[in-house]
Parts: sequence; C-alpha cells; structure tokens
Amino acid sequence: MNALPDLLIEPVVRLALHEDLGRAGDLTAAACVPAGTRMRAVVAARRAGVVAGLAIAPLTVRLLAPQATVELLATDGDAVAAGAPLVRMEGDARALLAAERTLLNLVGRLCGVATLTRAYVEAVAGTGARIADTRKTTPGLRALEKHAVRCGGGVNHRFGLDDAILIKDNHIAVCGGVAAAIRAARASAGHLVRVEVEVDTLDQFDLALVERPDVIMLDNFELPQLREAVVRAGREPVRPVLEASGGVSLETVRAIAETGVDVISVGALTHSAPALDVGLDVI
Amino acid sequence: MNALPDLLIEPVVRLALHEDLGRAGDLTAAACVPAGTRMRAVVAARRAGVVAGLAIAPLTVRLLAPQATVELLATDGDAVAAGAPLVRMEGDARALLAAERTLLNLVGRLCGVATLTRAYVEAVAGTGARIADTRKTTPGLRALEKHAVRCGGGVNHRFGLDDAILIKDNHIAVCGGVAAAIRAARASAGHLVRVEVEVDTLDQFDLALVERPDVIMLDNFELPQLREAVVRAGREPVRPVLEASGGVSLETVRAIAETGVDVISVGALTHSAPALDVGLDVI
Amino acid sequence: MNALPDLLIEPVVRLALHEDLGRAGDLTAAACVPAGTRMRAVVAARRAGVVAGLAIAPLTVRLLAPQATVELLATDGDAVAAGAPLVRMEGDARALLAAERTLLNLVGRLCGVATLTRAYVEAVAGTGARIADTRKTTPGLRALEKHAVRCGGGVNHRFGLDDAILIKDNHIAVCGGVAAAIRAARASAGHLVRVEVEVDTLDQFDLALVERPDVIMLDNFELPQLREAVVRAGREPVRPVLEASGGVSLETVRAIAETGVDVISVGALTHSAPALDVGLDVI
Amino acid sequence: MNALPDLLIEPVVRLALHEDLGRAGDLTAAACVPAGTRMRAVVAARRAGVVAGLAIAPLTVRLLAPQATVELLATDGDAVAAGAPLVRMEGDARALLAAERTLLNLVGRLCGVATLTRAYVEAVAGTGARIADTRKTTPGLRALEKHAVRCGGGVNHRFGLDDAILIKDNHIAVCGGVAAAIRAARASAGHLVRVEVEVDTLDQFDLALVERPDVIMLDNFELPQLREAVVRAGREPVRPVLEASGGVSLETVRAIAETGVDVISVGALTHSAPALDVGLDVI
Amino acid sequence: MNALPDLLIEPVVRLALHEDLGRAGDLTAAACVPAGTRMRAVVAARRAGVVAGLAIAPLTVRLLAPQATVELLATDGDAVAAGAPLVRMEGDARALLAAERTLLNLVGRLCGVATLTRAYVEAVAGTGARIADTRKTTPGLRALEKHAVRCGGGVNHRFGLDDAILIKDNHIAVCGGVAAAIRAARASAGHLVRVEVEVDTLDQFDLALVERPDVIMLDNFELPQLREAVVRAGREPVRPVLEASGGVSLETVRAIAETGVDVISVGALTHSAPALDVGLDVI
Amino acid sequence: MNALPDLLIEPVVRLALHEDLGRAGDLTAAACVPAGTRMRAVVAARRAGVVAGLAIAPLTVRLLAPQATVELLATDGDAVAAGAPLVRMEGDARALLAAERTLLNLVGRLCGVATLTRAYVEAVAGTGARIADTRKTTPGLRALEKHAVRCGGGVNHRFGLDDAILIKDNHIAVCGGVAAAIRAARASAGHLVRVEVEVDTLDQFDLALVERPDVIMLDNFELPQLREAVVRAGREPVRPVLEASGGVSLETVRAIAETGVDVISVGALTHSAPALDVGLDVI
Repeated sequence: MNALPDLLIEPVVRLALHEDLGRAGDLTAAACVPAGTRMRAVVAARRAGVVAGLAIAPLTVRLLAPQATVELLATDGDAVAAGAPLVRMEGDARALLAAERTLLNLVGRLCGVATLTRAYVEAVAGTGARIADTRKTTPGLRALEKHAVRCGGGVNHRFGLDDAILIKDNHIAVCGGVAAAIRAARASAGHLVRVEVEVDTLDQFDLALVERPDVIMLDNFELPQLREAVVRAGREPVRPVLEASGGVSLETVRAIAETGVDVISVGALTHSAPALDVGLDVI
Repeated sequence: MNALPDLLIEPVVRLALHEDLGRAGDLTAAACVPAGTRMRAVVAARRAGVVAGLAIAPLTVRLLAPQATVELLATDGDAVAAGAPLVRMEGDARALLAAERTLLNLVGRLCGVATLTRAYVEAVAGTGARIADTRKTTPGLRALEKHAVRCGGGVNHRFGLDDAILIKDNHIAVCGGVAAAIRAARASAGHLVRVEVEVDTLDQFDLALVERPDVIMLDNFELPQLREAVVRAGREPVRPVLEASGGVSLETVRAIAETGVDVISVGALTHSAPALDVGLDVI
Repeated sequence: MNALPDLLIEPVVRLALHEDLGRAGDLTAAACVPAGTRMRAVVAARRAGVVAGLAIAPLTVRLLAPQATVELLATDGDAVAAGAPLVRMEGDARALLAAERTLLNLVGRLCGVATLTRAYVEAVAGTGARIADTRKTTPGLRALEKHAVRCGGGVNHRFGLDDAILIKDNHIAVCGGVAAAIRAARASAGHLVRVEVEVDTLDQFDLALVERPDVIMLDNFELPQLREAVVRAGREPVRPVLEASGGVSLETVRAIAETGVDVISVGALTHSAPALDVGLDVI
Repeated sequence: MNALPDLLIEPVVRLALHEDLGRAGDLTAAACVPAGTRMRAVVAARRAGVVAGLAIAPLTVRLLAPQATVELLATDGDAVAAGAPLVRMEGDARALLAAERTLLNLVGRLCGVATLTRAYVEAVAGTGARIADTRKTTPGLRALEKHAVRCGGGVNHRFGLDDAILIKDNHIAVCGGVAAAIRAARASAGHLVRVEVEVDTLDQFDLALVERPDVIMLDNFELPQLREAVVRAGREPVRPVLEASGGVSLETVRAIAETGVDVISVGALTHSAPALDVGLDVI
Repeated sequence: MNALPDLLIEPVVRLALHEDLGRAGDLTAAACVPAGTRMRAVVAARRAGVVAGLAIAPLTVRLLAPQATVELLATDGDAVAAGAPLVRMEGDARALLAAERTLLNLVGRLCGVATLTRAYVEAVAGTGARIADTRKTTPGLRALEKHAVRCGGGVNHRFGLDDAILIKDNHIAVCGGVAAAIRAARASAGHLVRVEVEVDTLDQFDLALVERPDVIMLDNFELPQLREAVVRAGREPVRPVLEASGGVSLETVRAIAETGVDVISVGALTHSAPALDVGLDVI
Repeated sequence: MNALPDLLIEPVVRLALHEDLGRAGDLTAAACVPAGTRMRAVVAARRAGVVAGLAIAPLTVRLLAPQATVELLATDGDAVAAGAPLVRMEGDARALLAAERTLLNLVGRLCGVATLTRAYVEAVAGTGARIADTRKTTPGLRALEKHAVRCGGGVNHRFGLDDAILIKDNHIAVCGGVAAAIRAARASAGHLVRVEVEVDTLDQFDLALVERPDVIMLDNFELPQLREAVVRAGREPVRPVLEASGGVSLETVRAIAETGVDVISVGALTHSAPALDVGLDVI
C-alpha cells in the first residue's frame, strides 16, 4: 500500500486544527483542566470496519503536544472488530482533549471510506475485477481519501485533471467524434500519459476500439452490453482496459464484475461513505 | 438564513481547484477542446433535495473564467425536485469543463447535508424542538457545512472549541465533579460565552441543574429519562436549555422531540450525509 | 488563565520574523559575529509591569536556533519590578541576536496590554465589576492581546463578529427598533450564542429589558443613569448582565464600577496601551 | 510620499478580516440586517490628527463588497480637525458593517502613528534634524507603520535586519572593538548597503569616526556630548550622518535637535502611539 | 498547445513580485516618478527566439496596476526575430516600472527554455523522434517550464513523482531485479498510470522487454546499442516506447534520433537554458 | 560569508517538494521499495565547481525523513573537483529517494551560480574590481542565488526594489534630468538608503557626478569611456563608487576591470548559469 508522506498530510491536519481551535483555543479545557494534568487515552473503533489514515493520529497530537507519545495499535488496511483499539496516546491532558475531535473526524472519515471500499472489493472477490475510486472526493481530502480507497483494497483512478486524459461526452461533441477526440488526445499527450475514453453505446465503443485508447469506460451499460463489449475487446490484438461505471451499488457490483470488465469505478466510495464511528476513551 | 461572505468561501474553492488541476491543468480539455470554444451549461439536481451552497458556483467559475456569466436559478434553502435546474452558466468551454467537478463536489456535498437536515427538521415539525449540528464536520468545510445545516432548517451548535464551553465527562472527571466543573467554567468565561454541560444520568442532571448552566446536554438518555429531565427543569426559576444527543436517527428523532427537549443534536447531519447527486448538462 | 496553544501563536511569530529578516537575513550578525559564537542573554523588564506572552520567547528562538535553550523566569500574569529578569537563553549568537527585536516587540506589546489592564482591574478592586476588552485590537494580534488582557486580570469580550451577537445603533435603525432587533437575533442565534444589545438612553434600556437579552451595553451613560439602570434591572426576575462602555479612563473607571454594573469594557486596553520597555542583556 | 502598492497591503487586510469574521461571519448583521439593504456611511476623525493609510479603506471594503463605492475625502499626510470626514462609502449594508471594525482598527492605528510623528517633526521644525522611526513596530504592520511615519513627516530607518548594517554594543563586544567591527561590516557589505555603528561614549565615537561609517548613532548621549560629537564630526573631510537615539520624548526632542545632529530616532512613534479615534457614521 | 489556467500561474507571479517589492515597494519610482504619471511600453525580444509564457505579462501588470491595459503582440510558440515586440502595455508609470523586472525575469526564462527546446526539435526534424523534458526544472517553476517546452515543440515527461512510475537503478537493486520491479509496479499502479523502466545495458533491456512496461528508457546507450534495442523491440507483438537519455547535446541528438528511438529526454532544456534577452522599452 | 537562516530557506524547499510529490507522493518508491528499507547515499559533484547551498540537503531530507542523518562533506564556497563527495546521508530509502531530485535541482542550480561567479572573480583577480549580481534572478530563489554569488566570491547588488535607489533612464526621462532625479531620490531616501544612478554617456556622467550619488552605474560604456570616467571621478573630493554593466562576458570582464571601476555587475551569473551536474550515489 502506498504510504503518503507526512509532508503531504500535515497541511490538512493543520487546517483542521485551526478550524477547531479558532482564535482562542479550547475554552473548556482551559477552564476545567488544571495546567500540567496528564492523560492516557485510546482511540477505538465503535463498530467493525477497515482502518485507514492512522498516521494522522501522531501528526495531530504532535502539533498540539510535541512531548506526547502516540502508539499505533493497528495498521492501515486492517479489518477490525467493534471495540478494537487503534491508537494509544499519553501526554498533556489539555492538548490531547483539544486534538480529540480533529483526530476523530479525519480518522473516522477515512476508515469509513476504507470500510465501504472493502465491502465492494469483497463483493467482487474472485472475478478479477478491481474496484476504483473517482474524482468525486471531499474537497481538500483527495489524497487522503484515495489512500483510504487503497487501504480498502481498491485502486485509484486519476488524481486530477492533469495526470491522465479522460475523454467524456462533452469533449467528443466538441471535438467532432470519438475517433477525432482520441487522436487529438494522443497527439497532445506525453508518452507517460494514459488516454481513456468514455462511451455510452456499443456503437461508440466500436469506434473507440479502433483507435486503441488505453482504457475504455463503459458508462451506464446494461449487463448484456457489458458482456458484448468484453467479447469484442477480446478480439483485438491489444485489448484495452475496460472500465464499467454508473449506477454501481453493493447489490449490482458482483454481476457487473462477472461480465469480465477489468475495473469498476464507484463514486460513492468517497462522496457518500458514512464515517466509521471512532471514539476516544480516557484510561 | 446567515449568508457566508465570499471571502470565507474562496479559500476552500481555491484549495479544491488546485487539488483538481494539479500542476498541468486539464489535459483533456486542452487536447480535445479548441481554444476559444464557448459553452452553455446548467447544473441540475439529479434527485430531489434541499439546495445549499449555490454561491460556490459563481466563485468557482470566476476563478477559472473571469468573463463567464453565472446565473443562480434557485436559492439556498429551496426544496427542489429531481431534474431541477440550479445554476446556468456560459463562457469558455475549457474553463467551464475544468471547473465542473470541483463545483459539483462542493455543491453536491452541501445539498446532501441540507437535504438530510431537512428530513430531520420535518420529522420533528410541530414539537418545538430544534435540530442542531455538531463539530463532526468535514475537515476544512465546517463553515460551509454549518451553513448547509441552516439551509436545511437546522441550527448551529458550537463552531469550534473557542466560542462556547461544553463540559464533557472527561472534564468532569478531572475537575472533581459536575458542580466544580461548571463553577470553574463560569469563573473563566467572559460574559458573552455560554456554558453547557453534558450529563449521562438523572443524578448528574440534578447536580448540574443547581449550578444553572446555560445548556444541559442529555447524552444517550432513554425517553422516560428525557421526559423526567424536562419535568425537573421546568421546576427551576430559570430553566436551562435542554439538548438531547446520542443515538439519534430519523426513526427515533420524533419521539425524542416529543419529550419536550429544546434541541436535538445529530452528528450524522455532517459526518454521514450522502452527497446529493448533481450534474452539469451542456446545452 | 487560558493558555494559548503554540500552534495558534506560531504563525504570528513566523510572520514577524520574516518581516524582520527580509530576504537576506541579519547582515550585521553575519558580518560581525563569527559563525559558531555562542551567547547567553536575559530578557528583562526595564520598568515595572505585568508579564504576558512569555511563551513567545521559546517559540521565536526555536525558529531561528533549534538547539538553543530557553528558560522562563517569570509566569504570565506576574507583576514584576523594573529590572526583573523574564527569560534566560543560551545558544548561537547570530541566531539569538537575529531573534532579539522580534521577541522584544511582541513581548513588550503584550506586557504593555497586561500592565494597563491590571491598572484598570486594581482601580475597580472590591466593586465586583470586571474589566473587559473590545475588538479594537491590533490586526493580526487579537488572540495574543486578548490573552494579555486575561493576564492583566481582565475578561474577554467577543473574539470576533461570529461568536456572539452584539446589536448596535445601526442594526437597531435598520431592524425597526430595539425589540425587533433582539427578537431577530434570538430567532437566528443558536442556543450557544449570547445576545447583547447596546443602548444609548434609559428609554431604550427599558425597551431592551423587556426582551431579556443576555447582556445590555450602556453606552456613554452618565453615572446617575448607570445607577438607575442597575436599579431597574434588579427588578427583573432574570437580571441581564450590564456592561458600561464609552469614555472610560483610569480616572473615571472606579466611579463607574461603583454604580453596580457588572462589566466595564475599555478599548484603550489594546488600541492605546504603550509597550512595556523590555530589553535583552548579554551576560 | 512613498505609496505602498495595494499588493503589499492586501495580505494584512485579509488577515485582519479573517480574524474578525472568524468561521461564521457577522452573526449580528445576518440576523438583524435584511439581505440586500444598502447603506451610506462616512469614516470620520473623532479628534484632530494626521491622516495615514486611507488606501486601506477601499481595499477592505472591496474584499467584502466588490460592488461598493468608496471615495477618499482626505489624503495621506493631511492634518485634519476633529470631525473631519475621511472616507465616504456606499454599498451592501451587511458587508459595510462587517468591514467597519477592521477598517477602523487599521486606519486608527496608522493615523495615530502619523499624528505622533507629526508632533515630533513640528517640535524640531527649523533645526534641520529629521525624525526617524525604528524597528520597534507592530509585528506584521511594519511597512504600514513606516508608511505612516512618512505621512507624519518622518523618515524611515532600516526596514529590517537585511537592508542595512547597524553595529550595536553586542556586535562590538564579539568582534573585538569598534574599528574591527566596522571593517568587518565594510568587507562584507555590498556597495549598496550602508553601515551604521552605535556608540555609547565620546571615546567610542572617536574610534568610529576614523573608520568612516556612513552613520554613527549616539545612544543615550547627554546634550553636551551630542554637541561635542557634532563638532568633532565637522572636522572630518567626509562627515558621517549623526543619529541621536535613546530617551527621546516630546519634551526633550527640540533640545536634542538643536545640538546639530542630523537624525533623531524615536521608538515610541510606533510602539506606543495611541490610536487616533476614528469612527463610522451611517448617513 | 496546452494552456495553463491563470489560477496556476498567479501564485508564482505573486511570489516573484513580493520578492522584488520587499517590504517598502519601489523606492526609486516613488522618489522620481510623480504619482499619476502614465506610461506606454513594449516588451521586446532583444535576440531571436521562441516565445513562451506571455500570459505572465497581463497577470503581473494587473496585480500592480489593475487599470492598465496589456496587449499581446505574439503568441506562445511563435519564433520571433531580434527586436520583435511581444507585449504592449499602458498604465500607471510607477506600477509598470515596478512590474518590469519580475515580468522580464519570468518571460525571459521561459522564452529561453522554449528557444532551446526548439533547437533540439529542429535538429531531429523528420526522424520521428520527439524531444522530452525531465524533472530537472527550476524549483517552483515546473509547470511553467514544462509549458515552455511544449511551446518549443517538445513533449512533457512526468510532472512529478506521482503521475507515472519510473523505475531506476536504485529501485531495481532494492527490488531484486528488473522483472520483479516491473511486476511490483504493475501490481501497485492504477490503470491510468504508465510504467517506465530505466536500463543501462542490452541485457537489462531484454529482461525488461519481457515484462512489457509501457516505456523503456535507454540510459547512456551508445548509438549501436540504441539501434540494436530498436531492432529487438520491433520483434515484440506490442512494442514499448523507447526513450533515450543521458549525454544528449545539440551535436549528438540527431544521430540518436536516427537510431529509431521514439523519445529523447534532455535535462538541459530546463536546468541549463540561458534566458532569452527580453527588455522593456518606454514609448 | 553570510549564512541564510534555515527559516528563510525552508519555504522554498517545501514548495519544491510539494511540486515534485504532487498529490500522491512517490509512486515508484511505494511500489518497488519495501517499507522500512534503509539506504546510505552520497551527493557528489559530477564535474568540478564551487559549492553553494549545501544547507538545503539536511533541510530537504529532514522534511521527508525526520530520523535520517545528513553530514556535510564540503563547505559553501569550496572549489571541488569532479567526483568530490558533498553530502552523506542515511535513512529511510523511500524518503531519501523521494527527496533526491528536489535536493539535486536546488543544489545543482546554486553550485552552478557559484561556479560561474568564481570564474568571473578569478578573471578579474588583482584588479581591485568586484563582481556583483543583479536582480535578474530566478523567481522565488533570489535570496538563495545571491547567497550562491557570495559563495563564488561575488558581492550582492540590491535585493529588491526597496533596499536601495537605482535611477535608470526611464526615471531620468520622467523626472526632468539626471540632477533632478538624484535630488528627488536624496530627498525621499532615509539615511540608510544608498542612491545609485545609471548613465549612458560621459555627459550624463558629469551631470551625475556633481550631485554626489553613492554609486554611478556606467551602462554599456566602451573601455576608453570607462577609463575616462574613472579619471574624472578621481578628481572629486568624495569619489562615488563606479559600477560597470552591460555586455559583460568572461572574455571582456578583465579589460573592463582594468579600467579601474570598482564593481562589475553581471546578469548572467543568475539568469544564465548552467547548473552544476550533481548526482546521488547509493552506497
């Protein structure tokens, strides 16, 4: 699993801490917790799920309590039971209490993404299809959420508009057809940039196939159409990657995977995953 | 409804645009859309919901296409049907296509929060109870999500650790009891800061009541206990605000409201609201 | 006293250091102080005053000389005599000399605020009135200056436009009267937001009293009027907090306090406090 | 007078606005001022003083209300009477009210600096001495405060550690004497960097004079010593600039100026100037 | 040619302007140019070259002089003669003079990159080989310099460590061989990420060929080896892209291109291109 | 040599690292280098040159691998042979590999500047002339590149528009002549600001000489004119510094120096220095 350097995570954590501390810091702890009080606590999962983003815990705590100790009790990608301890920490009580909500908000959200991803991955187990995310991520959290998708066993689609070409219906309309669009993309793209094209019908699919894009996205295809596309692609000397998208749910994903497509992309992994309930228990 | 100044929204929009454009910008539009192509498009709700955050549309578009025109077709707080047009825009096609995903991600998320809030608000209609959010918001988006809660008809709880005092179990433990904690809070707080205390039992509730906090949060109380707390509070010369929290769902919220509490706070409004499906249609 | 986390102070210190170091750093030290020279120094008060903001010293030094040691010899809130040592430091001479002015500028300003606040607090000793600051703070330093006010024994008014409602004459004019304005505020505010209203006359005061705002600010009232307002408020079942403001000086503040008001707010605490003279002595 | 480009001012104004608006913006205006209400207002001086920093007004207003009109009624450097109108503005009432305090805090502070500077400048009128500021400025506001000093008729000392060399006692001690320090400075400095040395006694002054620094600062000299230094410097083929510093007040400054020194630097111009009282009147 | 949105360019321009204006702005213009003076000027190439980055001109000018007019007289990618006018501008003289150096530094550097790129592109004309850049770019200017490479007719290699996989000798050593490294890369990469491997010998090349990476980089190969690699690759059913790198100069590049490789990457395009001499003439 | 504090360098290093790591970090290392792998490496010069900016190495490495050790094997200003080791480092292999390109790009560029500067300095050895840089620096890297110039033995010209006055032809035209411009500059400048004027002819030079600017820049003078200017300046009681500029190359610089000018400024030092080839070798 691809580890994100702390350098990339820290700006988000700082932003979140400043958002919560505001101008005056934690009024309650300042009023009710004597300066110098120490505290031990454990972050625990309240429900079963898949762990993601635990590196956020030491980063968050360190920004408020540089002297605190933080120990990870699980590893990103682990499936844990309800009640499982994830992180143990010890340090200044005011600082740990001030860090609590920021830490839980981030970790809970990422574990939620990983947990939902894992459910999709398990639903297609054995089919050879991979579950991919989309760019429908939370603004500011894309790198973290895509990390969480990997923790859940998924693979990442584009990280942004600039690391691959994905030709959609609007581009095709403006460009004068599927073939023209793929050729324009190829001419413009460097040799390290993949080209994907989205098609809505089998006819469009055939037009695309001729141009040998790296990936063809089959958007909102019915199951028989997906199967047919797999067959037609199999006749090519170089078979493009086939990606199914649109209207995918936990109920429908297995049948889609069994059509033989290579990748199934699911926006809900990031835009609608409920947060995993994680809490902080003082011990 | 409290309008957020653009000054407060713009940093989030910039962050999201930079996240999506990366270093090289929109490779696909650059390859497939001729420079100077103009485009008209409409942002529409794909499903019924409550509108929130439409001010993001002109802000996002303006940052990429200063000459484009953007017209809002709905107002924050409106309940709209599936298919309803929300925003109309016209301008440079490359720029509008590059802005599309950022715009939809932000608006879809906020409409999702407003829509879920509205469902809770309608569930308690007529009871006098108000639905409040929590600090379980998306890191970086707190002000926007709390705005969306207001669009849905809810009210805002604290914006952060620094604009009110909320005494929780850990503070009570460290401070030597409910009464001591409330007194410490009062002594420390300025005259414009409210003091709330969270209690887990009726016994704790009685201890709190004596100290006259502004708000008492009844955490994970059963319905009969909630009713009893309302009765006991009613005997006080100055009745504190009563807030119920914990384990609230659309199924349980009405019964909770009918106990007579003033406020019901619901973390799910922000941490687990599915995004509303919104899309951009070229016309 | 409410301690500010270093996380909230550090951006200001960085800004100030960059402002002083410019592009090229300390030309004089580079030219005249051999690399590797070590130095011991003490920050001392040149005049008597109240200490505030000493946490800035280790933060500033650490940003330029991570290996230096810094020891605090006094505590925020202490009243010290002229000549009192406040901080002892030892480390790289170039770095400590480069940090000197930034450190002294910040600490001197905050001690100045605390010292002036203490003078007001002592002037009203025994009356029960509290001295509060305003939003007339130095741009960028609000959190630090409000911390200094607490060090001086004062209490904090609002931290900004967003953590309490304060209805002033312009709002009243636009809203159609005192009563309408208070009701609009109540309807809009969450249950953790206090509502204060400013009144200019006893007639306005009566109108406000009926609406039960949390705080009534008596702006530029004469002493007899203040006394009368205290009497009238005392007849209410729930007495609002009474705050006097306007034209307060060290000469007049005791008489104002003796009228029985609860809070006296003083803009001069932050907008016109002379800096305390603090210096750095090499030893 | 040297005009600061808006580009250099805007970051400070943004910082100050964010500090005041916090996360949620102006709660009071949102509650009490109907959306769309328009307003006219004038910023006026409540007391006589010297104007500085008026460019802040349109910048601040424009950031919250891009459509508002702002007209300057005075010019930086003007001496105005109590009651003088400085700025007229018209636009969205919520936005103008939200901008009010930030605008007044900045302008009031800068006018305060300019007003105090002017008092010193007038006290030395006719002597040929110039009044200079120091680096004892408000963190984050150095460029603005030094601009205000120019508005008051003063001249600017160094802007930071990097735009001139100023050898102080600590440098001399480490460097092995006045002569060695000046030579080290000269050897290190580029041909566009001035070298100043601070001396505490006439003996040190003589040592410095031989080395021909550009400027000699006479720190805490008595009047007879200052006069003697002027005489001795006058015997040199190239007379260095003589700067008096230390213990300067409005009472003592004229006598110091009459000794014949060229420049008198005054830390109080920026570290202890009371803000000029400026207010916003709705019309 | 892929146009960079202004949103991506503006931070660099702001950084450069702040770097040049420092704290006090343009002292010379403030002293010598009367306020309100207007000026017309033309940016012209002092030598022949290829144009790149002209969008920087209006951006830079607009940040200092929002009212100025800026007209582009050439287009990115144009080859121009010595003396050719590139940009015409008119506006406030102080502002235009203050913007001059920042504008020329950026445009001169980018034109330098485009000009050198064009020389390489022309040297390989007719061979079918493309000239690519590397990650050896100026820190902070990568997107702009890679844009300049495109203006010169080159193509872009990776934009960073995160948009493609490039396996180098160190990775191979750690991973246990070429084959293992490519397989690890394939297993980890999403379906939109290309995999390139760098080889130093023909033996390594053969090992790589079997694993079907998207691109094979032939590092520091002699010409006969390059030819042999082209032959061997041609025997594969799916021929990978062949990229030559190392020791490429204007003298050697044509011979390399004639070996039949697809891409030749040249670090000097960005790390050692002399700036094109561009100047600003007042008219 | 003037050492830059890390505080001033770190923002550039962060910017460069973020630019290279993008959103997802180092895909190749994550795929091919097992987590926890350790590595030792040496940064070495591939060609002979002058060292500059080595402090960047520990800063860069520390931001990605806080536990790594970094040892400097050379000192800024050293002339080293091809193959000379400059930095030794040991730590997490993924982190060191991710830091490699950023580190080499910055160090290579700065060593390139120092190496070219040294060549100019050696070319004028014994003449008494000093080699100075200009403001033609890489945007964002001015302080670092000017540091590199000092490492090469050169001196720094202005750091920006705000730390000295340099009157050029455009200013003279607007101001009504050389004399008027110099007087305006003197009247405006503080006593720590030097005034330089650029002249194009001996006639202009004579006009300037009378006004006693600190420095006169002789722009594009022929050698006989330079010699004549030196003679004329020598007749003055206070001789200004004479700076030659324009059309300086390694071939012409010695003859220019032998005319007797004090300073020769060379834009190519920073705008066109080829990077020194530095590489990282794993050991």
